[in-house]
Amino acid sequence: MNSTPTFELTKEFHERFSKAIEVKDVEFIRNSLVSVNHADISVLLDEFSPEQYKYVLGLLDTSIGANIIIDLDEDIREKFLDEFESTEIAGYVEQLETDDGADILYGLPVKQREQVISAMLNEDKAKNIVELLHYDEDVAGGLMAKELIKANLNWTIKQCIEEIRKQAEDVENIYSVYVVDNNDKLIGKVSLKNLIIARDKTKVGDIYDSDIHSVETFMPENEIAAMMRKYDLDAIPVVNLKGQLMGRITNDDIIDVITELAEEERQLMAGIATDVEEDDSIWKLSRARLPWLMIGLGGGSIAAYFIGFFEKEIILIPVMSFFIPLIMATGGNVGIQSSSIIVQSLANRNAFEESMKNRLFKSLLVSIVNGVVLSIAGYFIVFSFDSDSTIAMVVAIALFSVVLLASFMGTITPLILNKFDINPAIASGPFITTANDLLGLLVYFGVASILYQFS
Amino acid sequence: MNSTPTFELTKEFHERFSKAIEVKDVEFIRNSLVSVNHADISVLLDEFSPEQYKYVLGLLDTSIGANIIIDLDEDIREKFLDEFESTEIAGYVEQLETDDGADILYGLPVKQREQVISAMLNEDKAKNIVELLHYDEDVAGGLMAKELIKANLNWTIKQCIEEIRKQAEDVENIYSVYVVDNNDKLIGKVSLKNLIIARDKTKVGDIYDSDIHSVETFMPENEIAAMMRKYDLDAIPVVNLKGQLMGRITNDDIIDVITELAEEERQLMAGIATDVEEDDSIWKLSRARLPWLMIGLGGGSIAAYFIGFFEKEIILIPVMSFFIPLIMATGGNVGIQSSSIIVQSLANRNAFEESMKNRLFKSLLVSIVNGVVLSIAGYFIVFSFDSDSTIAMVVAIALFSVVLLASFMGTITPLILNKFDINPAIASGPFITTANDLLGLLVYFGVASILYQFS
Repeated sequence: MNSTPTFELTKEFHERFSKAIEVKDVEFIRNSLVSVNHADISVLLDEFSPEQYKYVLGLLDTSIGANIIIDLDEDIREKFLDEFESTEIAGYVEQLETDDGADILYGLPVKQREQVISAMLNEDKAKNIVELLHYDEDVAGGLMAKELIKANLNWTIKQCIEEIRKQAEDVENIYSVYVVDNNDKLIGKVSLKNLIIARDKTKVGDIYDSDIHSVETFMPENEIAAMMRKYDLDAIPVVNLKGQLMGRITNDDIIDVITELAEEERQLMAGIATDVEEDDSIWKLSRARLPWLMIGLGGGSIAAYFIGFFEKEIILIPVMSFFIPLIMATGGNVGIQSSSIIVQSLANRNAFEESMKNRLFKSLLVSIVNGVVLSIAGYFIVFSFDSDSTIAMVVAIALFSVVLLASFMGTITPLILNKFDINPAIASGPFITTANDLLGLLVYFGVASILYQFS
Repeated sequence: MNSTPTFELTKEFHERFSKAIEVKDVEFIRNSLVSVNHADISVLLDEFSPEQYKYVLGLLDTSIGANIIIDLDEDIREKFLDEFESTEIAGYVEQLETDDGADILYGLPVKQREQVISAMLNEDKAKNIVELLHYDEDVAGGLMAKELIKANLNWTIKQCIEEIRKQAEDVENIYSVYVVDNNDKLIGKVSLKNLIIARDKTKVGDIYDSDIHSVETFMPENEIAAMMRKYDLDAIPVVNLKGQLMGRITNDDIIDVITELAEEERQLMAGIATDVEEDDSIWKLSRARLPWLMIGLGGGSIAAYFIGFFEKEIILIPVMSFFIPLIMATGGNVGIQSSSIIVQSLANRNAFEESMKNRLFKSLLVSIVNGVVLSIAGYFIVFSFDSDSTIAMVVAIALFSVVLLASFMGTITPLILNKFDINPAIASGPFITTANDLLGLLVYFGVASILYQFS
């Protein structure tokens, strides 16, 4: 084994490397990065400034550099590419597969995009990238690469192998050779394994596997991810409406999609408005968090306004105010639990969706069980606290109602959002928590004013 | 294209199929499932009882049946396998790759495990599965399959191809041929692409790629997933401490790991205690949710006890109680936001972790920005509400302090949990929210009692 797998990024090396950049020690930089994987170099360079980054890249192979640029976060990459001339960017783009090349161009201003494309020497690749730029980034057309191995139905295995030899440099991972008819329509595939097993003179048409999954250019990324996961696919061909082979999506892109979707969900659940990471600027992080905090503030103000109606009652029976946090917290917790079970269910969607009625009914039964347990516990806690059976009864009834209501809201909100193609994970975020808080207060003071009237 | 990719599960077909099971219409069942992918059959059978499920499986090829059994959720699979004799299970296990076979055996009682293994006809496979059972399910040894193609350094390409021919049936996806020395030590790989390009008489030793990533048997699944994602690997070989090739993990297993980890995180964030899904029983769903709800109830009780100390103040200045929800909601929201940014950062961990001090400092700066904005907004909201500058000042100061405190708690808790190898996502769950609620109240009433003393 050579040095790559054992490359370890120590603090000492990082410091030494940092100094080497400072004094422009070209030899050290080159030698220490020889045969190091681009992903490791990306991590190493993570903390350096765009100028330093660019300086190191200039000392490396263009193809390594191109892969390092692709490893960068999208927003960092955009800033970083400001340092480069269009011709330099073109040089890097030419080293990449078309999908990665298109990703770089997506981030550039339209004028510079044109400049980069016209500066490319490989005209075929330039044409292919321009084609990919027509699609949205989050559908099959925007995810696919044009690089793939295609064989006509009438070819022999030997011809296939010649084709692979010819294109070996362009296509990093092959997986399968896609089989098309004379109209370029996708009709099947031959896996590399079967290609190796077959004899040279065999016809592709005799051994190809017609059992092939494909997606159309407009299919959204989450559906492609679900499909590739369901059928355990390494790559999926993309076809146009006529069934003609347009490109191919590989599983590394899909793993990125799955990870990004999980991150998006996490941020929605946490009420963070835009895509941020810990190493973003303080200003960006603050701005991403403020909108939801302001909504929470708004909700709190409405709650204050609402409690204000009961000012007289609170003066007479101040114990009423003691249990505001208990009711609110329970409503919030139940709401988040219910919504996240639905969100999970929607993420792993099966062919047969339970009807909304059945789901609400089941959620109702679960919340009756939880509500009964909580309200009995709540009754005894409050009674042991104050020996006042009225407030204990108020809390018990309010708890039961809040569990039912919050559970209903938590179940129905993601389902409705999903119907309107909005990410249902929002339903586990602060917006719904705020709504549930208000609902809880409403119920609590409602029950209190009824019971105290009668007592 | 044949029928597989176009198989569509309509409600009509589902009903027709259901009837066919009822009247034991063997012909319809067999014909309608011919060449349908096992993943689609799994979805179709999802709603049927274990007996019906077993009946349909009995009409299909054992290899299709085996893959359908693997598609089942672990807990459902265990219940389902109760219907089967050990010899029947052995028949299915023999159709699977060793990692999937071991997954089935993991779920059986130890005695039945032994029975299944001794009922297996393929002794090599039985031995391999027994070996895999020695490892935990969530480390490399428990995830790997024994199926792979291995070539000695001194072989020719022709010998490699012969080996692939021999083992073609056992190894579903090959990706690469692993190259070992005479002691079975892993020293490199030859990708299928390069195997195809190379001439028959070339020696493996002359063309193999020594730049290979591998993991040791005890590496935990989340680290393997991170590594395969970082280096875009389709498969990763597993070695023992001596560097000898033990097995191989493929990307479909890793996609499952990533999805399961995301689900676990979601449930932790939502405060759901055990792994549940929407279609679990009402009792199981209730039980999974109760623990956190009881903790919330406990927190609410402590809050009530605490507010009780201020009973006299609330009678005199009831407006104090109005802003309890506002303070609590803000604390909760800030805490969740801060912790989820850290959780995300830990999930995408880089080689250089920011030091805890730097992280807390940055988080402090972000919360000062947010705290200033919120407390100014809060001041004017409260003042417009009550025209009482003291309560407005109390709310403003409390908001600022709560933002700072909740942000500190939200940042430090996941970092500490992570240090102790506890999933940091718990920090975004109800436990921390409850702690933040209490902290918020403490600050609020603390500030109030100080300011009202002076006014």
